[in-house]
Amino acid sequence: MIKLRGTFIDEITHDIPSQNWTEDEWARDFDAMKHVGIDTVILIRAGYKKHAVFASDVLQKRMGIYPVYTDLMDLFLQQAERCGMQLFFGLYDSGTHWGPKKDYAMELAVNREFCKEVVDRYGHYSAFKGWYLSHEISKHEPGVLDLYCEMSTFLKGLKDQPVLISPYVEGVKQFGDQAISFEDHIQQWREIFKTLKGVVDIVAFQDGQIPYEELSTYLKAHKALADEVGIESWSNVESFDRDMPIKFPPLPFKSLRYKMEQAAKAGIENLITFEFSHFMSPNSIYPSAHGMYKQYQNWLEQQEAMQ
Amino acid sequence: MIKLRGTFIDEITHDIPSQNWTEDEWARDFDAMKHVGIDTVILIRAGYKKHAVFASDVLQKRMGIYPVYTDLMDLFLQQAERCGMQLFFGLYDSGTHWGPKKDYAMELAVNREFCKEVVDRYGHYSAFKGWYLSHEISKHEPGVLDLYCEMSTFLKGLKDQPVLISPYVEGVKQFGDQAISFEDHIQQWREIFKTLKGVVDIVAFQDGQIPYEELSTYLKAHKALADEVGIESWSNVESFDRDMPIKFPPLPFKSLRYKMEQAAKAGIENLITFEFSHFMSPNSIYPSAHGMYKQYQNWLEQQEAMQ
Amino acid sequence: MIKLRGTFIDEITHDIPSQNWTEDEWARDFDAMKHVGIDTVILIRAGYKKHAVFASDVLQKRMGIYPVYTDLMDLFLQQAERCGMQLFFGLYDSGTHWGPKKDYAMELAVNREFCKEVVDRYGHYSAFKGWYLSHEISKHEPGVLDLYCEMSTFLKGLKDQPVLISPYVEGVKQFGDQAISFEDHIQQWREIFKTLKGVVDIVAFQDGQIPYEELSTYLKAHKALADEVGIESWSNVESFDRDMPIKFPPLPFKSLRYKMEQAAKAGIENLITFEFSHFMSPNSIYPSAHGMYKQYQNWLEQQEAMQ
Repeated sequence: MIKLRGTFIDEITHDIPSQNWTEDEWARDFDAMKHVGIDTVILIRAGYKKHAVFASDVLQKRMGIYPVYTDLMDLFLQQAERCGMQLFFGLYDSGTHWGPKKDYAMELAVNREFCKEVVDRYGHYSAFKGWYLSHEISKHEPGVLDLYCEMSTFLKGLKDQPVLISPYVEGVKQFGDQAISFEDHIQQWREIFKTLKGVVDIVAFQDGQIPYEELSTYLKAHKALADEVGIESWSNVESFDRDMPIKFPPLPFKSLRYKMEQAAKAGIENLITFEFSHFMSPNSIYPSAHGMYKQYQNWLEQQEAMQ
Repeated sequence: MIKLRGTFIDEITHDIPSQNWTEDEWARDFDAMKHVGIDTVILIRAGYKKHAVFASDVLQKRMGIYPVYTDLMDLFLQQAERCGMQLFFGLYDSGTHWGPKKDYAMELAVNREFCKEVVDRYGHYSAFKGWYLSHEISKHEPGVLDLYCEMSTFLKGLKDQPVLISPYVEGVKQFGDQAISFEDHIQQWREIFKTLKGVVDIVAFQDGQIPYEELSTYLKAHKALADEVGIESWSNVESFDRDMPIKFPPLPFKSLRYKMEQAAKAGIENLITFEFSHFMSPNSIYPSAHGMYKQYQNWLEQQEAMQ
Repeated sequence: MIKLRGTFIDEITHDIPSQNWTEDEWARDFDAMKHVGIDTVILIRAGYKKHAVFASDVLQKRMGIYPVYTDLMDLFLQQAERCGMQLFFGLYDSGTHWGPKKDYAMELAVNREFCKEVVDRYGHYSAFKGWYLSHEISKHEPGVLDLYCEMSTFLKGLKDQPVLISPYVEGVKQFGDQAISFEDHIQQWREIFKTLKGVVDIVAFQDGQIPYEELSTYLKAHKALADEVGIESWSNVESFDRDMPIKFPPLPFKSLRYKMEQAAKAGIENLITFEFSHFMSPNSIYPSAHGMYKQYQNWLEQQEAMQ
């Protein structure tokens, strides 16, 4: 049976509007996730620039974050426990990684101290089962790879649990004329994986930047490269649409299903999505997500009936 | 009484997000259309690039379309029959028409074979009452006009029923500084209509690219030109807003009403819209469409009360 | 207790899509405003280009406005009276103020005649309690300041009631590289306020164009400058998000709360927002506004419980 086992949680958001949910709405949404078999949630980032999911002393002191009125970290962990899910914790991202003034020494120093605080405060939750390196990469960049290596060792020292990354492809649907070729992309990742061997446990490539007809080729190549170095392959089956003038509406269900089927054919069993709550939830602020959920449910039922 | 008699159905979409509707939602929406007196639906296109409304063998073989999980052609025709409506079938559009590499020989070859398949599969539906040439034009371009001529003859040979087009105006609200003048536009269409005489039965110009205050002038000129060559004039009263930074929200009802009144004053009785389901339906994913529907209904009732 | 006492009403809109509300929806929304303690509504503009809130003879004759099917002026004043609110009336804006061809002589002539008509038709409403100069400014521009001076005298002659303005800041979140520095901004406003002394009664700067971390500095400086010339300071706490690729979704509630707290700390008691109905209403077409309303209500209750 082909299904999603996980979803990102996108709050603190970057370019997706907040749904303005209270605890009630989040609880209801975890119920909906559980209802369709999701057992893994991945916090996309615990903090971004001056926003954070809880009132961290470290981020307050070092980054001067804005006041935090709700402890989302507690909320998400409690909901995950209630629903029998595992939570992967995404690191703090200062935002410099995305701009011209990268400062990985700072990023590393803040995150070391911050993650220590996180484990002190939330480490007792049994749902706290993984780490997610939120500084996304697409190409071989030594600075961020060093961050990955150092953080992975440090995080596993704090709490020995799997480390996940979800890289992107500089494909035409996001990068247009600046997109890199399949060959370049693969060459980059052959290099990257040499470094990430033993550092990262799971890699879930984003699947939305490339044309649908090339997806199968990419999925198989990614899996083969990751297999070589013993990294587990998941797929991040994006549930938002990159082909529309609005950034971003829910994907048509047919496209989600197509991408999931391609991943399954490539031998990838663990599928996650960015992300359930905005783009495929019955509780989403985007009404077409409600239709996505309904169609997804119908498809799961069809698959069950066929077994 | 001024009212819409028809609407496009925009699934396969180009730049409008999918509503992710199942058969239930489509059935409910046909009910809503019928409730406000719509008796004509026009499939905007049966296929676009690698997407199609049904699992066409021809498009699979020739264009390598993605899998189709729901037969929307069957669905739309069944709903149209249930609601006593006529359906105009919009051709397959490979997408090359819109880019620099036009290939009308290919477009023609694919559509001949594809439309033959369509008539074989769906020709028995009594609702199947018209053809729609989905390759929109604005200026005199010999390549696409040849396509129109050849397809019209071919389609009428397959199934003798009216051929509809819905051209656009290269007006300031879409083309800004690149817009063409009224005089140029009219000159182009004087030429075009010479070619389209006897080829096309109905022309429904899109009414949204020009300022509201010029609409009346355009409507009257369009009708006069079409009258000269014996082509019936309808008006495509767009129900989405081209004046907003978001592409595209539902139009304010007052603007829809204004445009419909202008069309009526220009002597155009048959009004259609692009399109009901996204922009003026009580079932739309855009909540302001619900208000549009309510106001439209109120206005119909006011008109009835006045008769 | 920190709360919003007022909101703009954004219909006729500039870049925010219409909600397509009938009288029922507007009545329901005034109920919602009242429920959270709003006692002031400010009509953002009574007319814009060829659109108007009522079928003004003056605007018809002078500007050739489109037909107006609903008298929103009557509607808003009646609702304000029913809910015990005061309404500030925003002037007609021809649109030239925003482009290269400014024509303040025309703007003045039209508005004199138009506002006379408005007072003749609607002056008897007890809710009609203020004037709002809708031609927004950010820098010292003699032409529009002359308009302010002349209109203020004229309006107070027609009906002696306070005059409100809501200027913007040419800050980085709207103007990017073209933003002006804090020092320049303050220098400009030191000059402007010399002119506006005795002309304008209330100034409510928009708070959304500058980074959150600089807000406190701006709020305090604005208040100090206005205090010097005896102009009352309110704050326009924008409830829409300028940080997203979509123009514009509702703000996350946490950001609204933060900005309100900063205004209160700066000694500003009267807070208004642009605007309730789209961005924080339980009736909004944007579902995340519903969550905003819920969280805002919760916060008001928390504050009450703490008193």
